[in-house]
Amino acid sequence: MSHNTFGHLFRVTTWGESHGIALGCVIDGCPPGIALTEAEIQAFLDKRKPGQSKYTTQRREADAVRVLSGVMPQEENDTLVTTGTPICMMIENTDQRSKDYSDIARRYRPGHADFTYDLKYGLRDYRGGGRSSARETAARVAAGAIARKVVPGMRVRGALVSMGTHKIDRAHWSWEEIERNPFFTPDADAVKTFSEYLDGIRKEGSSVGAVIEIVAEGVPAGLGAPVYAKLDQEIAANLMSINAVKGVEIGNGFEAARIRGEQNADEIRVDEYGNPSFLSNNAGGVLGGISTGQPVVARFAVKPTSSILTPTRSITADGEETEIVTKGRHDPCVGIRAVPIGEAMVACAIADHYLRHRGQTGRI
Amino acid sequence: MSHNTFGHLFRVTTWGESHGIALGCVIDGCPPGIALTEAEIQAFLDKRKPGQSKYTTQRREADAVRVLSGVMPQEENDTLVTTGTPICMMIENTDQRSKDYSDIARRYRPGHADFTYDLKYGLRDYRGGGRSSARETAARVAAGAIARKVVPGMRVRGALVSMGTHKIDRAHWSWEEIERNPFFTPDADAVKTFSEYLDGIRKEGSSVGAVIEIVAEGVPAGLGAPVYAKLDQEIAANLMSINAVKGVEIGNGFEAARIRGEQNADEIRVDEYGNPSFLSNNAGGVLGGISTGQPVVARFAVKPTSSILTPTRSITADGEETEIVTKGRHDPCVGIRAVPIGEAMVACAIADHYLRHRGQTGRI
Amino acid sequence: MSHNTFGHLFRVTTWGESHGIALGCVIDGCPPGIALTEAEIQAFLDKRKPGQSKYTTQRREADAVRVLSGVMPQEENDTLVTTGTPICMMIENTDQRSKDYSDIARRYRPGHADFTYDLKYGLRDYRGGGRSSARETAARVAAGAIARKVVPGMRVRGALVSMGTHKIDRAHWSWEEIERNPFFTPDADAVKTFSEYLDGIRKEGSSVGAVIEIVAEGVPAGLGAPVYAKLDQEIAANLMSINAVKGVEIGNGFEAARIRGEQNADEIRVDEYGNPSFLSNNAGGVLGGISTGQPVVARFAVKPTSSILTPTRSITADGEETEIVTKGRHDPCVGIRAVPIGEAMVACAIADHYLRHRGQTGRI
Amino acid sequence: MSHNTFGHLFRVTTWGESHGIALGCVIDGCPPGIALTEAEIQAFLDKRKPGQSKYTTQRREADAVRVLSGVMPQEENDTLVTTGTPICMMIENTDQRSKDYSDIARRYRPGHADFTYDLKYGLRDYRGGGRSSARETAARVAAGAIARKVVPGMRVRGALVSMGTHKIDRAHWSWEEIERNPFFTPDADAVKTFSEYLDGIRKEGSSVGAVIEIVAEGVPAGLGAPVYAKLDQEIAANLMSINAVKGVEIGNGFEAARIRGEQNADEIRVDEYGNPSFLSNNAGGVLGGISTGQPVVARFAVKPTSSILTPTRSITADGEETEIVTKGRHDPCVGIRAVPIGEAMVACAIADHYLRHRGQTGRI
Repeated sequence: MSHNTFGHLFRVTTWGESHGIALGCVIDGCPPGIALTEAEIQAFLDKRKPGQSKYTTQRREADAVRVLSGVMPQEENDTLVTTGTPICMMIENTDQRSKDYSDIARRYRPGHADFTYDLKYGLRDYRGGGRSSARETAARVAAGAIARKVVPGMRVRGALVSMGTHKIDRAHWSWEEIERNPFFTPDADAVKTFSEYLDGIRKEGSSVGAVIEIVAEGVPAGLGAPVYAKLDQEIAANLMSINAVKGVEIGNGFEAARIRGEQNADEIRVDEYGNPSFLSNNAGGVLGGISTGQPVVARFAVKPTSSILTPTRSITADGEETEIVTKGRHDPCVGIRAVPIGEAMVACAIADHYLRHRGQTGRI
Repeated sequence: MSHNTFGHLFRVTTWGESHGIALGCVIDGCPPGIALTEAEIQAFLDKRKPGQSKYTTQRREADAVRVLSGVMPQEENDTLVTTGTPICMMIENTDQRSKDYSDIARRYRPGHADFTYDLKYGLRDYRGGGRSSARETAARVAAGAIARKVVPGMRVRGALVSMGTHKIDRAHWSWEEIERNPFFTPDADAVKTFSEYLDGIRKEGSSVGAVIEIVAEGVPAGLGAPVYAKLDQEIAANLMSINAVKGVEIGNGFEAARIRGEQNADEIRVDEYGNPSFLSNNAGGVLGGISTGQPVVARFAVKPTSSILTPTRSITADGEETEIVTKGRHDPCVGIRAVPIGEAMVACAIADHYLRHRGQTGRI
Repeated sequence: MSHNTFGHLFRVTTWGESHGIALGCVIDGCPPGIALTEAEIQAFLDKRKPGQSKYTTQRREADAVRVLSGVMPQEENDTLVTTGTPICMMIENTDQRSKDYSDIARRYRPGHADFTYDLKYGLRDYRGGGRSSARETAARVAAGAIARKVVPGMRVRGALVSMGTHKIDRAHWSWEEIERNPFFTPDADAVKTFSEYLDGIRKEGSSVGAVIEIVAEGVPAGLGAPVYAKLDQEIAANLMSINAVKGVEIGNGFEAARIRGEQNADEIRVDEYGNPSFLSNNAGGVLGGISTGQPVVARFAVKPTSSILTPTRSITADGEETEIVTKGRHDPCVGIRAVPIGEAMVACAIADHYLRHRGQTGRI
Repeated sequence: MSHNTFGHLFRVTTWGESHGIALGCVIDGCPPGIALTEAEIQAFLDKRKPGQSKYTTQRREADAVRVLSGVMPQEENDTLVTTGTPICMMIENTDQRSKDYSDIARRYRPGHADFTYDLKYGLRDYRGGGRSSARETAARVAAGAIARKVVPGMRVRGALVSMGTHKIDRAHWSWEEIERNPFFTPDADAVKTFSEYLDGIRKEGSSVGAVIEIVAEGVPAGLGAPVYAKLDQEIAANLMSINAVKGVEIGNGFEAARIRGEQNADEIRVDEYGNPSFLSNNAGGVLGGISTGQPVVARFAVKPTSSILTPTRSITADGEETEIVTKGRHDPCVGIRAVPIGEAMVACAIADHYLRHRGQTGRI
């Protein structure tokens, strides 16, 4: 709601720039009594961390997270227990290359926020993109690691389902495969295709977009709100807030606009245990803004990295025409590292609605 | 942020059900000194009103809006001037057919919120869909009529760009054409196609989805926020909150995920007056969450109406299997009437950010 | 948080002016399944209603409340059941004397918001005070009637404990007495004093202030938040938002500043059932912002009615010096009618925290 | 609004416990372009810092503040310029005496939040009071240092006006005197009285309460909101959120309840420059929730420190009766150090309303 906060009862505020002293987040409203370790949080950060393969930026950051508040350390081990008070987590910036930024300080890189920041604020932190750098998302991933623990039994996983013009074959879907390749893609057969494709892109100094799918299982029925603050709406908002995201879908998404009512209907039967059983999940686990108990499914489109070696025409802060080539360390496909970020944002949205549902209805 | 509120400084809270006494909204934070008439607001409501053509539900509602508060009537004419205090607008429900709802009171219509409402609240207002009825959107359209006046020089218009498997030809785009056909479509050549297609759908008792595009011109540069509460994020959230919406795009949207960095870059030149001039608008008028001054462009996908005559399998509130045919008055393509609703939601998001930008930076 | 909203999960937004068409409120977040009748709500409005005795303004308003949304009428009787969706309540303005307001339209009555409204908004609704009229509080009383039902077993009652220089004798406290006199005072012996005193004030065309005490019993322990959004803080904010209130106290309040630590300590023993039992309640039922389970006690000071017959010096909107005598229908002691308003505001604050506590901790 | 956040456009979220790694705050919404230094912020922290005299706790903390984000360092000097992005400030805890807390971990100190925390959360950080420690207020003071710069020309100062049964003589008021004595009191003649009085209290192992007055000058007219979120209401809420505060007044406060309308009226004349000139300030600079342009005046009552050497009766977490003597380092009058905290909270409330007013009305 605020400029740098999302969530209502599970509220996350992030702070920090790419090349400042540190960045991090404050989680306000986390339930008390949740056990966690810094290592568990770090594991999610490591998935997002740059420099893991040749397909991500070679900036080397430890991205080591510290939990500064909101927890009681247990004497016997390294477990922390949440106390219900605000949890501040901090990640220090260690690889802030001391370089000359005068090159971009006064020039507007197309596709970046340089132009709009100057228009909005009259000044900006141009060092590495400042606040608009994707480094900010490390803080979200840390918050997501805690959000996952708020909803008992929930599992949130993401997968890269297309890169540029190449799509995965959904018949090959394997969650295990995701852990094995540098693209977080669930189709083992697509790995070679993606590798060759992205190698070519990278060598040409270009970049390409991607589509990521997030699936949340174990989401209790009843989460969400009927009109605004629908569960799918907040998921959409959370995903759209990730850098470079230009589209969001729930369930079958834009495909729903192309089909007919009877094709789109998720029929319901009673299973052998007497429980409701949906025959399909076109809705993506959300009806009327409220979770059905089926997996919640969302997808988002990430544009190609704007920082490319191909020269693009632009202007300077002084209104002079110029041409820009963005050197430096950049991912040829930022969509890859968006996978753990998307997971975190969905986890946060669901955790928030879990607490809100419990608050309003007492039905959890 | 709240369950039934959107916006931050231009805050809209809607209330009301399909078959209750009335529905409406409260706008809190509207600037003072804006002149308006009920007739101006009514004109937007009339666009959304059912019963305008054979392609929309035959429910006949006057949908007459009354401004109950927040304005000073001028003595000399029927103009109202906003005072800066909350504006409550009310639309009475007049065509609440007294009928027997026992048919759906205990049965879950697939694609509707019946199932999830009962799971969430333990009870629901089943009369005409209650709060989940699209009638609620009349209140949003009224709010949008005022939002449009908050940003001087802004014009927000919408268009149906595809229906089911049929797309418009964008080369034929004419804003004038939109006023002339019952589909709010800008391509005169598509009208016959859509007519025949939808006639067939309607006669079969089926339904179909659609994609709507909203274009906001005259949006000042600098609106939005860099991380959360990005302008595009709030537009996405607002659009996703509309009933039956399953996907949202900004600018070139999902297409951005398929192309390369140099194709996606919106290059900038200096025009003859010395002003920045973008050579394309793939970004949809928003960079890094902040408006560029170009038109803001968003699209959203509306699923096919869930109420169809084709029998679909479902269950009752008592867990019994059943089959459902939804009789009654329903739009074969709810996407059509979503056009004015989408306009309103985009106008509200921009108005809110206009005030927030002025508040934080004083730069307007 | 917003300009005209209070509460977080039990959110109340009021709207309307003294002399507009109607006024009312929207409650967003009310739990589903609460049974209520319009008559129950009306009973609280009738306590606040003007014209009940010679000590309150002779404006005669029916103040009849209608519940427009958020409820399902039960077929068998006049009971309404909340559905969890927004509850809009409306009170039409019926006694809007058509009179010439030019007298005050351009003149700033001392102690009123006339001067500051013009400075803030550049215009104002001067008819009967517009939005700053105490008539707005009718909507709060309606909201409070529902808030009372949100917390099972809670009872919120108020009492006038001093008027001008006259205080009640707390040894005479009787809740029953409050229902019997026109001052809502619990001390039968004070009634005659107050009557004579206020008769004198009224005849002189003057006015006088008062102090009101609100006691909420049956408040579960654990409600509140430790730092901001303390339960006592939100009660203070809610009470301070009532027209003419200039001070708020919790528990022994300002007296706490005069005494020593050992005098102020509320010692705890174990009662015969093994439960914690406080030996005093200096804290007013709140420790560290969180309810103890003891009665929550708050007091607030209401300034004398600013509308008096005694001429006071002021200026016009054009910056001319003038002298003002406020004729019309005014309470000589607005504090009297503040009693039901204070009750409502305390009930709303506690209901909100009840839901928030349940949301964050699941401990209710 | 949230549990640990205050403000709307100038939003402050604090985090941290007494004996955790660090504490701090995030300011979201600060306007861009404000120049500041860490030294300026530190100066306010030093006023609040313990160990400055024998009248405050002997805990020795450097309380050194670091600005981690939201600013651009200027190359030429140590000035930082705000960028409009979130400002995180951190204060590390350095004097966390490693001691055995088992003494209070399971025992409820009367007047402290021990009992209510356990009831609310089921666990608590008992080390030095955890989140309920007044150490948290260091973060507020840091936020206040920046808030002061948001409103051009504003000056916010505080003064201790009574301690226990002793009051200052307002005729002796000198703002300069405040800087010279350890009580932040403006009456030089009261210093000796307070010294002797508090020496006695301290030696007896007791404590005493105090009343603090905050005066904000240079507040533009028009700030605030007419109904909820009144300027005085938000000031009251902010002050009531300070640890140990039990009462808040605006202007003449509770005295207003004792006097008559004509005594309370702040009459207005036109001064020699043609500007409105109030003849008194009973209202404390706020009419109808909106600032008049006069000094904003608020007072708050601080209860005596609950940690005393006098034994008080209480219970343990296991429900056993016990007796408690709180040893350790404690202020005999916490009201003294509340002076800079109160200043900060008032500054934050005004800064927030300054931005909101500009946002809604554009009139600044």
